[in-house]
Amino acid sequence: MKLKVYADRLSQPVRAVIIFCEVNGIDYEEIKVDLANREHLTPEFAEINPMQQLPAIVHGSFKLFESHAILIYLASSFPGVADHWYPADVYKRRKIHSVLDWHHSNLRRGPTLSKTESFWLDDNRPFLLGQNQPSIADLILVCDIMQVKLVGETDWNRLLGPYKKVQQWIENTRNATNPHFDELHKVLKELKEKLQN
Amino acid sequence: MKLKVYADRLSQPVRAVIIFCEVNGIDYEEIKVDLANREHLTPEFAEINPMQQLPAIVHGSFKLFESHAILIYLASSFPGVADHWYPADVYKRRKIHSVLDWHHSNLRRGPTLSKTESFWLDDNRPFLLGQNQPSIADLILVCDIMQVKLVGETDWNRLLGPYKKVQQWIENTRNATNPHFDELHKVLKELKEKLQN
Ligand SMILES: N[C@@H](CCC(=O)N[C@@H](CS)C(=O)NCC(=O)O)C(=O)O
Ligand SMILES: N[C@@H](CCC(=O)N[C@@H](CS)C(=O)NCC(=O)O)C(=O)O
Repeated sequence: MKLKVYADRLSQPVRAVIIFCEVNGIDYEEIKVDLANREHLTPEFAEINPMQQLPAIVHGSFKLFESHAILIYLASSFPGVADHWYPADVYKRRKIHSVLDWHHSNLRRGPTLSKTESFWLDDNRPFLLGQNQPSIADLILVCDIMQVKLVGETDWNRLLGPYKKVQQWIENTRNATNPHFDELHKVLKELKEKLQN
Repeated sequence: MKLKVYADRLSQPVRAVIIFCEVNGIDYEEIKVDLANREHLTPEFAEINPMQQLPAIVHGSFKLFESHAILIYLASSFPGVADHWYPADVYKRRKIHSVLDWHHSNLRRGPTLSKTESFWLDDNRPFLLGQNQPSIADLILVCDIMQVKLVGETDWNRLLGPYKKVQQWIENTRNATNPHFDELHKVLKELKEKLQN
């Protein structure tokens, strides 16, 4: 029962899920659901995810949606996923849930960057939660921030400029997950070029 | 090291956390932070929660915010909390995360009620996730929906009227957590009366 990932790589949580699978050697089948063509609104896809959003997965007989829940499930049930992605330790785990929930309910990018710089990356460790390796929270937040690249180099520099720790943390997350990180973010560059023509 | 809960009972996630503590016999100290008086915006409270929102907890030397993360933490680290609140089983757990995350990113009440009726309560079990006992997800969602009572009986009936399963599920959650549920929701009635005068 191979994992099925319903995906459009233009979606930031989709990219997080696919990078996670690639980095952790999880064997998956990527099933394209074209958001621009409104394929997520078909009755067929409603059978997979009644909320009609991406990402969604099917594993054996069961279905799951919501990117955080998907990453937690993959980290908890696939053998060989290193502990740092979703630490078993109750104290580390509570921090993961806190940062993921906070991100959920605070999607305005300005405040997110400023609080990430001043609070979450406060202790000068390379990743959120003070670990030396990334967790699923790093992946979700960085993939979301990367979407800003779509608006162009100038806006990206203006927006990210004041946040040195955030810049370094994005770079750390990229390095820890490459070549998959760059591979998955190619679509952003391609879309930007398309939009400019 | 007694648990400290920073609270204003007019907040729905605060009520969920306090009901959870009461039902599970967790010894806590409730520290009032008056939202109407903007006490959450003081520098003192920023020391407790840099995001300046309620609820927040302090347990021994550490601090935690975000209601879902708090409930997961309490359920995972206090002895004597029954398994149904946050089941250890990976398959049940993935459903809890999915419903909580979905609720986070879908706070419009109309769609929430309709999807809860047609999808989450689909199998005619008394609670979300198909359990016979409530989980932290039931508590969070029901406490949020109860806020609608503030708008008055007429709107409550118009909004909830079409959703028989949702009505039953609210009643089930109330029964499973009373007398604490009613006790914590008194503030809504009081506020409504105050607003009407
Ligand atoms: N909270 C969800 C968000 C999912 C979401 O918003 N997906 C977008 C793509 S990034 C989508 O499917 N949009 C189509 C729609 O909402 O109609 C998650 O983290 O999985
Ligand atoms: N996602 C947060 C939401 C917290 C929240 O929005 N709290 C409100 C009260 S219900 C608050 O503190 N509002 C004050 C503010 O945002 O300034 C959680 O679930 O804990």
